[in-house]
Parts: sequence; C-alpha cells; structure tokens
Amino acid sequence: MYPNWILQRAQLTPARRALSFEEQSWTFEELKNISVKRATQLTALGIKPKERVAILGPSEPSLIFMMYACMHLQCEMVMLNRKLSKVELQYQIEDAQVEKVLVADEDALLLPDIHTPIVFSAVESTVGKSLEISKEWSLDQTVTIMYTSGTTGLPKGVRQTVGNHQASALASVLNIGLSEEDVWLCTVPLFHISGFSILVRSLLYGNAVKLYKKFDKDQAALDIAEGQVTHMSAVAVMLQRVLQELEDRGLEASPKFKMILAGGGPVPENYIKRAHRLNLMVSQTYGMTETSSQTATLSNEDALRKLGSAGKPLFFNQIKIAGVASPGEMGEILIRGPHVTPGYIGSFSERSSTVDGWLHTGDIGYLDEEGYLFVVDRRSDLLISGGENIYPAEIENVLLSHQAVGEAGVCAIDDETWGQVPVAFIVLKEDVREDELIEFCKERLAKYKVPKYFHVVPNLPRSGSDKLLRRKLKDLLN
Amino acid sequence: MYPNWILQRAQLTPARRALSFEEQSWTFEELKNISVKRATQLTALGIKPKERVAILGPSEPSLIFMMYACMHLQCEMVMLNRKLSKVELQYQIEDAQVEKVLVADEDALLLPDIHTPIVFSAVESTVGKSLEISKEWSLDQTVTIMYTSGTTGLPKGVRQTVGNHQASALASVLNIGLSEEDVWLCTVPLFHISGFSILVRSLLYGNAVKLYKKFDKDQAALDIAEGQVTHMSAVAVMLQRVLQELEDRGLEASPKFKMILAGGGPVPENYIKRAHRLNLMVSQTYGMTETSSQTATLSNEDALRKLGSAGKPLFFNQIKIAGVASPGEMGEILIRGPHVTPGYIGSFSERSSTVDGWLHTGDIGYLDEEGYLFVVDRRSDLLISGGENIYPAEIENVLLSHQAVGEAGVCAIDDETWGQVPVAFIVLKEDVREDELIEFCKERLAKYKVPKYFHVVPNLPRSGSDKLLRRKLKDLLN
Repeated sequence: MYPNWILQRAQLTPARRALSFEEQSWTFEELKNISVKRATQLTALGIKPKERVAILGPSEPSLIFMMYACMHLQCEMVMLNRKLSKVELQYQIEDAQVEKVLVADEDALLLPDIHTPIVFSAVESTVGKSLEISKEWSLDQTVTIMYTSGTTGLPKGVRQTVGNHQASALASVLNIGLSEEDVWLCTVPLFHISGFSILVRSLLYGNAVKLYKKFDKDQAALDIAEGQVTHMSAVAVMLQRVLQELEDRGLEASPKFKMILAGGGPVPENYIKRAHRLNLMVSQTYGMTETSSQTATLSNEDALRKLGSAGKPLFFNQIKIAGVASPGEMGEILIRGPHVTPGYIGSFSERSSTVDGWLHTGDIGYLDEEGYLFVVDRRSDLLISGGENIYPAEIENVLLSHQAVGEAGVCAIDDETWGQVPVAFIVLKEDVREDELIEFCKERLAKYKVPKYFHVVPNLPRSGSDKLLRRKLKDLLN
Repeated sequence: MYPNWILQRAQLTPARRALSFEEQSWTFEELKNISVKRATQLTALGIKPKERVAILGPSEPSLIFMMYACMHLQCEMVMLNRKLSKVELQYQIEDAQVEKVLVADEDALLLPDIHTPIVFSAVESTVGKSLEISKEWSLDQTVTIMYTSGTTGLPKGVRQTVGNHQASALASVLNIGLSEEDVWLCTVPLFHISGFSILVRSLLYGNAVKLYKKFDKDQAALDIAEGQVTHMSAVAVMLQRVLQELEDRGLEASPKFKMILAGGGPVPENYIKRAHRLNLMVSQTYGMTETSSQTATLSNEDALRKLGSAGKPLFFNQIKIAGVASPGEMGEILIRGPHVTPGYIGSFSERSSTVDGWLHTGDIGYLDEEGYLFVVDRRSDLLISGGENIYPAEIENVLLSHQAVGEAGVCAIDDETWGQVPVAFIVLKEDVREDELIEFCKERLAKYKVPKYFHVVPNLPRSGSDKLLRRKLKDLLN
C-alpha cells in the first residue's frame, strides 16, 4: 500500500510552496485543502469514487485542483488534449466510455456537442458533500489515461497507474538528484505526460512547480537567468527559443538553475552546444506516453561527450535492441520496467502493451559500447512536431474520407522551427482545391496535424503486398 | 521486476567512486567485477542460488564483496552479529537452518564448533565456476535476515526483502535529498540495518561510502570538519564522542557536510544543541530491524523547533498511535508501509509480523498536533545500549539457567556513555559469587548484554498473574 500522494505530502511538508502561477502561490497544505474541497463538490455533482472521467482545460491552477480532486476520488482521468478537433475529442470520449466530462469554462466550446459537460465554475460553486478520502492507493490503480496513436492511426487510451508514475518519479530522482529548493518550470501541457509528470514529481519530492498558462520565451529566459526556477521540461522548439532569447539579451543561466530536461523528439546538437555556452545544462531524454515519461536520460556530465544520445536507462528500467548481438547494431528499441503501462482501455483493451514484459516501441536505435542509447529513426508511423506526436495514418484516414481523394500518404519533412511537419501525397479521383482540403482537415484534426503541403501524384510507392511505403514518400519530392 | 542493484548501478555510473576504505577505493564497476567473481567462486564451493547462508565478518571491503556476491546469487543472507557469544550465534545458525556459514578469516574463532564454515580466503582463492547472474530481482525476494528479540527473549529472524530495502532507501531520498557528490560515512556495523542500509542507499543513489573498520572519533571528526564525507549514521554515544572531539580541537563541520542521521535510541537534547553550535546538522530517526531502518526522521529544519521528536514518517510510511483519538495522547506506536518486514524465519516463521498490515512496535509515544512523533518510552522488554538492542528476557533466561538462581529480572538504568545498561535483580536458591555469574553470562551472551550490577533481593515485583513487572524493578534500588 502506498499513500495518497497529495495527503501525504501535505502531512509531511504543509508549509512548503507547492505551486506558483502569475502572482499567486499555494502551499502543499493549501493545495490539499482546495483539492479535498473540490472532491466533495464533485461528489455532490454525482461523480463517484473510481469512476472514469474526462478532463479538459488550460494549464491553470484550477485544472490542477480539479485533477487532484479526481485523484482523491481515485477516478481514472482521461486527459483530453486541448489542441484536438471536436471529432478527435469525441472519438476519445466515446472510446473511453466516460459519463462525465469536466471542462474549464474557457474550453467548453472546444468540446463536441455531447451530453452536457460539467464546467469548472459549476463545480466550484457547488456545496460539497462530505466524503471519506482514501489515505492509501494501490500500485495498480489507474491515475491517468492518455491517448496516443499507432500504425492504424486509431488513438489508443494508455493507462498510467500509481505504480507507473511513482516508479518514473523515483527513477528520475536517482538520476538527477534532489534538493528542497528545486523549482520545476512547467510550460508543457499538463494533459501530456511531460507536464503531468512534473506534478507527480512535485508531490513525491515536495518541491514547487512554477506554472505558465502558455510557453513564454521571454519569461522563461528571465526565470532561468534569475534562478527563479531550477529545472524545466522542454521540447526542442522551446529550447531554441529560450536560447535565442538568452543570447539576444546577453544573459546566461543562473548558477542556481540545474537543467532543462529536453524530450519529445530529438534535440539538434547545435542547441546543446549553444546551451552549454550559456551555462545551461540540457539533458536529453527519451520517453513516451506508454512509459509515463522518461525511460532514458542523458546526464549533464555526458551531454557533450555523448552528443546525440538519449543517455542510459533510469535506475529501474531496462532497454534492449531487438535481435542484435553486439553494441552499435541497430534494431527496434524495447523497454521494460515498472514504469511501462499495463495496457490500454476502450477498443484496444484486449491488446497487450508488452511482449514477454517488453514494450516494443517501433523506434529504431542502438546502444553503444558503454550502454548509451542512440535513437536513430523514429518509427515511420510517427512524426513529432514541436513535441506533439502525429500519426500519419490518422491524417491519411481523414484525407481518404474526402470524396476527391483516391489514395493518401503522409510523411514528415524537416522543419527548422518544429523539428518535423507533416506533408501529404495524394492521388485524386476528381479535382479539388487545396484550401478545400485544408478546411476539411481542420474540421477533423488538430491544427498541428494539418499537412503543410499537399502534393498531387499519379501513384504512391507501395510494397508488393500493396502496403504504403511511407519512408519512400519523400523521394517523390526530388 | 526490479533490477539487480549492483549490476544496474555499475551499468549506469561505472566510473563513480562506490567505496573507500583506508587508502583504497573502488568504483561501482570494480565493485561489480569483484562481487561477480566472488559469486562464481561461491558457486564453485557449492553455494546455490537462492540458498540461505549466514555471514560474519568485520566492516571491511571483503565483507561487502562477499555480501554482494550472495546478492548476485539471490541468497538469503543471515547477518551474524560479531558481538554475540558462541551460544547466541549457534542458536541463530540453527534456527535459520543454514547449511553454509561464510566467515572472515579473523572472525573464524568467534563461531561455535559447527560443521566447517567457509572462510573468506578460501573463497578468494577458489577458481570460479561460470554462472548466469540474474539481472532482475523481485520485490518479495529476501535479501537479508537480521535477528532481533522480543518479549520472550528468543531471537527472531526478521526478513528484509528487496521491496523493503528499496522502499526505505527511496523514502529516505525524498526526505533528505540527493546530490552526486554525497559520501556516506559508515562506522556502524554492516550486520545491523543501520549499516546495511547505507550500502543499499549507495547502490540505489550511486554515491560513495567511506567505510571504517571500527568507529574512530578522531578520524570521524576530521572527515566531518574537512568535508571528506557528507552524511554519517551514528548512535548517541558516537555522536557525543564526535562532538567532544570537534569541540576539543576547536573544529566545526565543513559546509559540505550535510547531516548526521542519529538513530538506535534517543539522542539527548543537549547533544543536538551542541551539534548545532558546530554547524553540524543532526536528524533524529526512529526505526528498527522490522522496518529496514528509518520509519520517521526529523528534518534539519525542525531539529531545534521539535527537540526530542523523531520527526514525521517518511513518504511511503504511516505511523499511528493505537487507540487514541487526539494528538498528544500516548499509546503504542504502530507502523505501516512497504518497508515493513513480511515476517520471520525459523521458529517464528508462522508468526505474523503485522496486525491488519500494522506493525505493533511495543514502543510508547504520541503524535503532536503537527504529526511529529515523540517516542516516550521504549517497550519495557527492550533496552538500548550504545545502539545495540538488548532484551531483558534473554538475559533473564540465561540467569535462570544457573543452578543458584531462583528468579531473575533485568531492567535498564541510565548510563551517561551508553544511554542505558542492563542491571539484574536475582532471588537466589543457593549462594553464588558475582564473578561466577558474570563469567556464566559472558559465555552465553554478548559482552554488552552482561548485567553491569547484580542485586540480590528477597523477591521480585510481580502482577496478580505472577507476571514479572519489569518497570517496577528499578524501585527496588531506592
């Protein structure tokens, strides 16, 4: 049995700062009191312990209070992505079979017209109903469900349990250390594992989170230069903007600042070198929704010596390359450890997440002689744009549903700002204007998934068995 | 599944210093290589994986190599206490039903004349037999067995599993933080949980241990003043000697030094105050063999504000006082958490260690309004002398086996140096000289358990049901 993180942290260090946002801040005791109150309010509104609920809102304290309230109720939280289209949100809400959707007032219009959602202000103005909050959680209890896609393009709801989150946070602390004064800057979405794991670490470690509603390069650069924060999670595009800002202003990182954890896709080597010139330590990490954040992380000490590597596995984790006998050989990256999801919900609930306990990532990489992981090629069915995962199949499915499109293939092209962006190759059945296709996609897909370019081609590269060869799509551009 | 700590640590930070002893030091890679070699040597000598073995030796690297070798083999290690008499050691060896006893050459004569033990030098000179070392351990696998006594005076072998040790080390890091540069000074016995837990933390945290063969106040004071170490575990008598040494030499703790973890019984408040004047942080802790070391620890920040408290539970643990409704009320201290032993071996293997998941300590204490634990009175069947647990019933049993002794009662009296020492009250059947009783005890008991005084009395205080009232023994002195 493990403790309810929120109650236990408030019990141990009630007066320590837990959260700051703009001009306000909250201690762990305050966070507990508000979240317990919200839990009683949710109960009054008919939300039952252990029920599955969906939750949607911007990165504001009110979202954290609501999530912690759900955690007190041991609800399974389906974390909805604010950037998704209504069609995509509807799919997830239906697949997860949630009865209740909690939504921040300002996000209410993002939701499809489903049975009435519960807006945060309704919760906040309800008179609470007393309830006994469980002081203990079990390791296999699901805390969060995050949707991610795969080869089919159909999003799968990934379970992340108490045990997954806890193992991830504990393995991370053994890698990066801990001091009471640590403050983690959170500018990544809370509905992604990168953001939510910052909250979990805060509860376990007893350190503060500084929350931004949106990524703000000016403020982030200033916070780093002044030592207002000690850690930050970032994707490559954020890192680049912070670097630029520091360089432009002639600033460098405060000696109090410890490191940027850089994930969500590869980080150009040039960024790492520039960061080091600004005394800004950057640790590259490799992780995914299925591993509740970091699986491998490159330490500061190795950042320059092992440029391009994602580091070694964290203490509780193992990484191996499928079917290879010696270091340096490439193959599929397999992952094992207590941080790996026990499986999916909804349509994929019967599908096992692992084979003999190993998660097959689809990513290609190798381990060098010293055991450092190098991710060479992301799975061809995934591209990462500004830290967001994009599954080509999902976009192809949408394009194919348009009457003018006979065949569709989507792949990534490199982009200086976003790392990668999607482009589409289509074979037409009848004429169609590009802006009509864009509009069609926008209604059905998150904006970042809409192809940047559409190339009309006579046919698509296919294998003997007629399987689309996505890796060959790019050749059509030459 | 969790990793083999020794292999994983060597894999992650091979070149970091793991251990230093006198003029020598070893990296984690070296520690792994030597311990793996020892494992092959133990195998050649017939020790099988998962077998239960007893182990005895002074605090030297060779003992650590041997213990880690046993851990590679997933053996259950019965940790023998070097201070025990042959009779006591024999009891434990028989109770644990171990076939093999590993003993450091210099300790061979401490053992009873049992079937031949295996001396370390024999292992070290054996040609190893190749074997596959398991990369994974399971949480419920027993790592160590440490004997402790109880009301009956019969020592019970307490299991400490991978999960117990791991939870303890992880909860501790969430309390005291972690930096790569940490070095833990180990002057407490490795066969006690206080010492062994330093090794576990080192493997999980990747930090160095500085090992002393024996406690040495001069060297410890110097190491603390020079910042050669950052942490130290100590019992009150060691703390007092280090303080005295620092004071006498006009030294104070280096700013690099972080804290002394003071356990194994209460620490006089005066020591804490003197320590603070020397910039020496002292964290009082409350723990026991059954909880794989710390259950509660007072943080530095509270050391003076909550003088006399053992602090709050560590993150994964819970403490409650049996049968009390409000803060400040006294009662038996109950403990719960993943660090609590799953149970005993040998004669007590059928006995459950917990009731509804709660360990009943027998100690009396209270929690204040803020949740800080105050241990008011150790169980009357236990006294602590220089950090060693002494069970009066065990001494009484020995005394009663002497032909001249009709009744015997043992209790603690305060002692300036050792905290407490045992004194005996006896009702004689026939005349006997005190030195004869002392000799009789010495043959059967560790030296520290031999009563400091023998008081011949006409009868002992007993309850209506004839139960010895140990708490009333002291009144006989007045």
